[in-house]
Amino acid sequence: MKLKRSSRLVDITSYLLQHPHQLISLSFFSDRYESAKSSISEDLAIVKDNFESMGLGRLETLAGAAGGVTYIPCMGGPEAERLLDRLKEELTEKDRLLPGGYLFMTDILGRPEYVNAIGRLIASVYIDEHIDTIMTMETKGIPLAFAVASQRNVPVVVVRRSSKVTEGSTVSINYISGSSKRIQTMVLPRRSLKENSRVLIVDDFMKAGGTMKGMMNLSEEFGAIVVGMAVFVEKEDEQKKLVDHYTSLLKLSITEQTSALKIEYGNVMSQFSNRDNRSGTIN
Amino acid sequence: MKLKRSSRLVDITSYLLQHPHQLISLSFFSDRYESAKSSISEDLAIVKDNFESMGLGRLETLAGAAGGVTYIPCMGGPEAERLLDRLKEELTEKDRLLPGGYLFMTDILGRPEYVNAIGRLIASVYIDEHIDTIMTMETKGIPLAFAVASQRNVPVVVVRRSSKVTEGSTVSINYISGSSKRIQTMVLPRRSLKENSRVLIVDDFMKAGGTMKGMMNLSEEFGAIVVGMAVFVEKEDEQKKLVDHYTSLLKLSITEQTSALKIEYGNVMSQFSNRDNRSGTIN
Repeated sequence: MKLKRSSRLVDITSYLLQHPHQLISLSFFSDRYESAKSSISEDLAIVKDNFESMGLGRLETLAGAAGGVTYIPCMGGPEAERLLDRLKEELTEKDRLLPGGYLFMTDILGRPEYVNAIGRLIASVYIDEHIDTIMTMETKGIPLAFAVASQRNVPVVVVRRSSKVTEGSTVSINYISGSSKRIQTMVLPRRSLKENSRVLIVDDFMKAGGTMKGMMNLSEEFGAIVVGMAVFVEKEDEQKKLVDHYTSLLKLSITEQTSALKIEYGNVMSQFSNRDNRSGTIN
Repeated sequence: MKLKRSSRLVDITSYLLQHPHQLISLSFFSDRYESAKSSISEDLAIVKDNFESMGLGRLETLAGAAGGVTYIPCMGGPEAERLLDRLKEELTEKDRLLPGGYLFMTDILGRPEYVNAIGRLIASVYIDEHIDTIMTMETKGIPLAFAVASQRNVPVVVVRRSSKVTEGSTVSINYISGSSKRIQTMVLPRRSLKENSRVLIVDDFMKAGGTMKGMMNLSEEFGAIVVGMAVFVEKEDEQKKLVDHYTSLLKLSITEQTSALKIEYGNVMSQFSNRDNRSGTIN
């Protein structure tokens, strides 16, 4: 189907947004639109300028016969701050504090616009890491893990508390919960992870970090390599966390006597600003 | 920021794709680009033609002072068939049959490109229904539910098998599992659903339909209205399903003696072809 430039721009934009982290050859687009590669190159230059000035991410071009273009989603710094500010505001609403020092976040983690934006932010932090798989623990981490995985175009594996018939054979480990000090079990289907695969762990909430550490140990059982850990909300405690080198988007602290809760930025913005992040944003 | 038409087309396309089912006013775009509304209208006509000819969905325009444009994602018939054919092929690979007549689908339901496409297909079937919330049962239905919810811009509520401290107070019901005939429990946080909200139930697998029926009953406890039920794979059984009026994408049947499995289209294509679906696709 022969298309004019204006139509090509609409189609290239939507195609790239739906196929992140995939090298798309110039030939693919030139066949798709029956257009010369030189025209496609001009189209891509326009798309690239706009993606970068709008903070949608990078468009990396590879020259040569096997060349093409890869869309790498990335959230700009100002958009990240606006997102964290909105989330802070929602989470400090009253009636969110639950027994045991937990925070009611189920409603927020049920809203795709938040979940997808959080996924884009986490993907931006690990933009320069090679990642094969996103790992999470059932249940509330799952939407976040998929949101990151969609941006990275990699699969998700879900760790469970017990094996299910629908999972086939599984590998299980015991671990000590960081806060309750009880022995718990986590399992993962045997077919889930290949040796040497590079894993990013994503979860919704971290208290002492026992579950995170369990997932690290489980990954080791498969011979996989944990390249990073990201958590939406970490709880500030007196005790030292069982893991280090993690990314947290927000940090929750609770004053025991008054049950007053405070939510601040986690360590994400400091990790974020290390990135090459020249993109501005328009509102 | 003043932008040229080519840049505006890139930005409008990405903005609409990221904000489905939301009325965006012409003023929003004309302010964003410092352009006349007449120019924006021309841009939108180009975007609309392309979205519709590429099978990305509809662009509905509302005239007048409060007017604007709403992007309604929809998968075209040919793309739906290609998706189902690929999924059929993946699912008929050997080694997928598990004890108890279950199918190993964990890997496929872990891949965002499949999950997001399945979500777009389910959203297309219910394109003309008003929907407030997507409901699913933990664990494997969650990614599918979010994929549908992202297309519809509505929240997800996750039904669980037991209450968790992180959920706050809950409403629970007992139900009879359709296949094992055992009494089971399902719970949903009290804050999850408003009265009269319109619910679409989404799940990954249905045998007799006991879980689906349980979710219907649970919705009734909240005074909510179930507008539809969609399942990725239904299992063909001798016994009649406990629910009717559901959508299934694929249908699995297993010959008991030989353990041979067969996967066919579910009822989705017949429901799909009733829709106004003039969109073609380009490859």
